[in-house]
Amino acid sequence: MLTAAVRLFNTHGYDATSMFDIAESLGITKSTLYHHVSGKEQLLTMAVDRALGALEEAAREALDSPDPATVRLRRLIRRSVLVLAERLEFVTLLLRVHGNTAAEQQAVDRRRAFDRIVTDLVKQAQAEGGVRADVDAATAARLIFGMVNSLIEWYKPDRGAPESIADTVSDLAFDGLRTH
Amino acid sequence: MLTAAVRLFNTHGYDATSMFDIAESLGITKSTLYHHVSGKEQLLTMAVDRALGALEEAAREALDSPDPATVRLRRLIRRSVLVLAERLEFVTLLLRVHGNTAAEQQAVDRRRAFDRIVTDLVKQAQAEGGVRADVDAATAARLIFGMVNSLIEWYKPDRGAPESIADTVSDLAFDGLRTH
Repeated sequence: MLTAAVRLFNTHGYDATSMFDIAESLGITKSTLYHHVSGKEQLLTMAVDRALGALEEAAREALDSPDPATVRLRRLIRRSVLVLAERLEFVTLLLRVHGNTAAEQQAVDRRRAFDRIVTDLVKQAQAEGGVRADVDAATAARLIFGMVNSLIEWYKPDRGAPESIADTVSDLAFDGLRTH
Repeated sequence: MLTAAVRLFNTHGYDATSMFDIAESLGITKSTLYHHVSGKEQLLTMAVDRALGALEEAAREALDSPDPATVRLRRLIRRSVLVLAERLEFVTLLLRVHGNTAAEQQAVDRRRAFDRIVTDLVKQAQAEGGVRADVDAATAARLIFGMVNSLIEWYKPDRGAPESIADTVSDLAFDGLRTH
């Protein structure tokens, strides 16, 4: 049910999708659908939770680990790529949500909290000397996650195993394109 | 007129915006609007052309220049960032278009042609030894432009002058986060 809803949200937009559309795509009546979920907002919350739950777990591990910030940042980038590759439709929905309703606003707020953790980790890694200090930490965090988040536009399993894409992203993020 | 249309397309989606909505936001009648443009498709074509025209010009210069591919790739990344920062709303529309109508499909095709030029440039830069050969060229091109394109999600003039963001993107793309 959740997968069907997410597919419709991603194809036609959250606003443009009705409970009737979701019921119809499942071949059930709207009243049967309402028997299972309270409404569209609950489906959105459940769906973005699949994406945010996994990203927040990765962030929590990055915060709790005793390793240097540079190591933790690299691990968080790798794990985020794996979450995106494995939960692509849920993350796609999360990244397209814009905060028009309470459920959407909550998703946007949780995303921002994740972004802040990444920025703080970049700052710590700069302070310990592992990450260049000549770039603004928030800009670097946005650009690196721009690379990670681009997966929703192009990733397909035939373009590489998640582990291999995660290696490429963390290699490019840390060492860049230049030959070493 | 074009700016008003693009603003509506970006806020509510191209599909969800009607010629009536555009006329209303301009405070004119629909028939006055039709006096200037043939329809929504023409407005879309004009708008994505503002983005694609500038990107294609940068790509053409990268192709025509006698410089090494590595230099041309770096210049193309820089110039693309400048185009995005300066024509943010037009590029936002371009990147969200999905090819449901002839005008949208044409924009998608032109975008793909641009992506192919970037991938070819990465391949040439790898062949001349300036870019690491251990990453797939198409994947590297997608990830680097994921970084560039992320500007549509977060760029605001108070987050840095276009020139300075362009430097940060090309530095990170070539040298990565690591301290050198």
